[in-house]
Amino acid sequence: MGKRLLTETPVISAEKAVKMLPQGFYAGGVHVGIKRKRRDVGWIVSEVPAVSAAVYTQNAYPAAPIVVMRETFGQSGRLSGVIVNSGNANALTGEAGLADAYAMQRAFAERIGVRPQEVAVASTGVIGVRLPMERVLSGIAAVPVPPEKDPEAFAEAILTTDTTVKAAAQAVTVDGKEGLIVGFAKGSGMIRPNMATMLAFLLTDLAVDEAALTRAFRDAVRRTFNRVSVDTDASTNDMALVMASGLAGGAPITADHPAYETFAEALFQVSRALARSIAGDGEGATKLIEVAVFGARDEQAAETLAMAVVESPLVKTAVYGEDPNWGRIVAALGKSGAAFDPGGVRVALGDVVVFADGAAAAFDEAAAKAALSGREVKITVELTDGDGEATAWGCDLTEGYVKINALYRT
Amino acid sequence: MGKRLLTETPVISAEKAVKMLPQGFYAGGVHVGIKRKRRDVGWIVSEVPAVSAAVYTQNAYPAAPIVVMRETFGQSGRLSGVIVNSGNANALTGEAGLADAYAMQRAFAERIGVRPQEVAVASTGVIGVRLPMERVLSGIAAVPVPPEKDPEAFAEAILTTDTTVKAAAQAVTVDGKEGLIVGFAKGSGMIRPNMATMLAFLLTDLAVDEAALTRAFRDAVRRTFNRVSVDTDASTNDMALVMASGLAGGAPITADHPAYETFAEALFQVSRALARSIAGDGEGATKLIEVAVFGARDEQAAETLAMAVVESPLVKTAVYGEDPNWGRIVAALGKSGAAFDPGGVRVALGDVVVFADGAAAAFDEAAAKAALSGREVKITVELTDGDGEATAWGCDLTEGYVKINALYRT
Repeated sequence: MGKRLLTETPVISAEKAVKMLPQGFYAGGVHVGIKRKRRDVGWIVSEVPAVSAAVYTQNAYPAAPIVVMRETFGQSGRLSGVIVNSGNANALTGEAGLADAYAMQRAFAERIGVRPQEVAVASTGVIGVRLPMERVLSGIAAVPVPPEKDPEAFAEAILTTDTTVKAAAQAVTVDGKEGLIVGFAKGSGMIRPNMATMLAFLLTDLAVDEAALTRAFRDAVRRTFNRVSVDTDASTNDMALVMASGLAGGAPITADHPAYETFAEALFQVSRALARSIAGDGEGATKLIEVAVFGARDEQAAETLAMAVVESPLVKTAVYGEDPNWGRIVAALGKSGAAFDPGGVRVALGDVVVFADGAAAAFDEAAAKAALSGREVKITVELTDGDGEATAWGCDLTEGYVKINALYRT
Repeated sequence: MGKRLLTETPVISAEKAVKMLPQGFYAGGVHVGIKRKRRDVGWIVSEVPAVSAAVYTQNAYPAAPIVVMRETFGQSGRLSGVIVNSGNANALTGEAGLADAYAMQRAFAERIGVRPQEVAVASTGVIGVRLPMERVLSGIAAVPVPPEKDPEAFAEAILTTDTTVKAAAQAVTVDGKEGLIVGFAKGSGMIRPNMATMLAFLLTDLAVDEAALTRAFRDAVRRTFNRVSVDTDASTNDMALVMASGLAGGAPITADHPAYETFAEALFQVSRALARSIAGDGEGATKLIEVAVFGARDEQAAETLAMAVVESPLVKTAVYGEDPNWGRIVAALGKSGAAFDPGGVRVALGDVVVFADGAAAAFDEAAAKAALSGREVKITVELTDGDGEATAWGCDLTEGYVKINALYRT
């Protein structure tokens, strides 16, 4: 992977991607009043049962839709549709909430004429309050049959405190077939790997077999969504899923197919673009922070170090203040718990090396400050322990984050 | 320990304690211009070499004074003095900084007529900048000989962004000898166990042997200072130490002496009072948050759960907003990684049970809000897994924290 992680992503921008869908997919969204103003029920339909893979939160209190997914998705491995609401997480709502999630899945399955276990169900929003089921069901009743293509409405319908829609796409030729991968996500707060309060839906018309899709997706999630942190709080509702319709044609790609890497790489790129957009739109954020660690003992150590820096409140506030306070970065590495040689560490802000040989490097203060002045801030940590590397994404910590979260529920 | 952790501490308040010193101890502090205005060099002198114990940061980048302590304190096990500066941490300052810390130790040892290894040295403040040694040395030259008793000046001299001095004391009769334990601390930001940017100095005139003192102190630190978190950032400079002069008389208490528990309990109480004052005076804080966990599988699980709640930015901002958003507390338990039965959890804000049996309890919203309205907020988590318990302390997250830390260095 290496330096590639630091290059600009070649994916199609959110502005364009949000208007795209691969062959055989339909999507839309409506406003039914779970949130005050914006769309709050979104849906996806696939023309054919799509080979699919999904990952879920590891929170000990998974929300009702996560429980439903764990219980039903495994029965088929294929999905024909997705139903999502925002504004209410249907989390910590007990048995009644679980029944609501099943009812939501069943109603959408009936609406589009498939079996319930072919429908993915997701919720995001406030925790601990029952879903207003009448409104959810009215949204499902409003799904057009036959379905239409309004991906932008879907992308809007899954947002909570997000300030922008999050989408990314990449065209890719795999085994001679021209295909498209399009992804949509929401993020904002309670964002921390395994997963983040994060929903992501990736769609492709490429033909990929289930094992290959699962492997490529888990690998992409591990290196992208699971390395995003806005506030260290992992949600009860996280879910990322991918659906592959196969309508681009050809035999399904298997994991040992020569074209597998091309597909996996494209899936990674789209996931990475979505992960970056989630980090950059963290609650109250003014800056996206990217921390790239090279030369660690192994990938796990690199990830631990990168996450420690990207999650440090003192690093986050220094970036907000555009203060090249490198001591906080080094202190964060030191508290991470990762095994590394502290004497062999170099730290750079943008291209400006600020720490080397155990002390401050001789650097130009103005240049270091300039490296923090943009909308994206890059922190690079080079170690001398091995070839482990990882990149993590986060955002600055601002008064805005505090304001949003001091009064979100009421 | 049990419910005792939730009772009011019987220790002497900071206002009175800051004017107290046990027999045989002297202390003071001066302003030499490392900080703009407040005192910045503090010192303690013991009339006799005092049996002592210390714990240090576990950050992989220990500051120079920590390195000096690790290298020299072990040689004697006794301390006759402490020299501290605030305003500059002498951290990440390389070999030159290490030489500075040794010079600081040596100069103070000469000033008070003891061997360098009998002097504890500590620094706190900005990272990565060389100590202004002329100023530090001028402060040491100003230490009165013979020494005087001005503990309040010492307590002030060790502060950084702290808004109040931190002191606590307890009179205790051990094995028939009336003694006193007095402690001073500083905290504020970069506060997270193992240790916190925290300095604490506990002094007693009781006679305690080294093994007993070390055991009692480590136990107290584990259950108090190591369960405080302001912002999850562990400092390069943390240190807590205790000195026992023995001037109260009698043979040194050993760990198997019947009076050991009485001494250990008093040391715990003073440590706990200091830990609470550090948490309550976290940068920008308006509220102290105490999270008590009972019924966990073991103490470690209880600690992990308590720390996850007290460190959750979403819990911290909800407390700031006085919003009884119990879902965030439960989500924080769920993301902690601790093993527990999620079905057997009850959560209370103050005395108001807000979560039970996997969903919202029927509670009075106004009462729950009232439980968050004071200067101290108590969150109790009861599990049904065993008898492990732990209490952790933190503070709310406010715009003030962001403001202080966005521009601390420049």
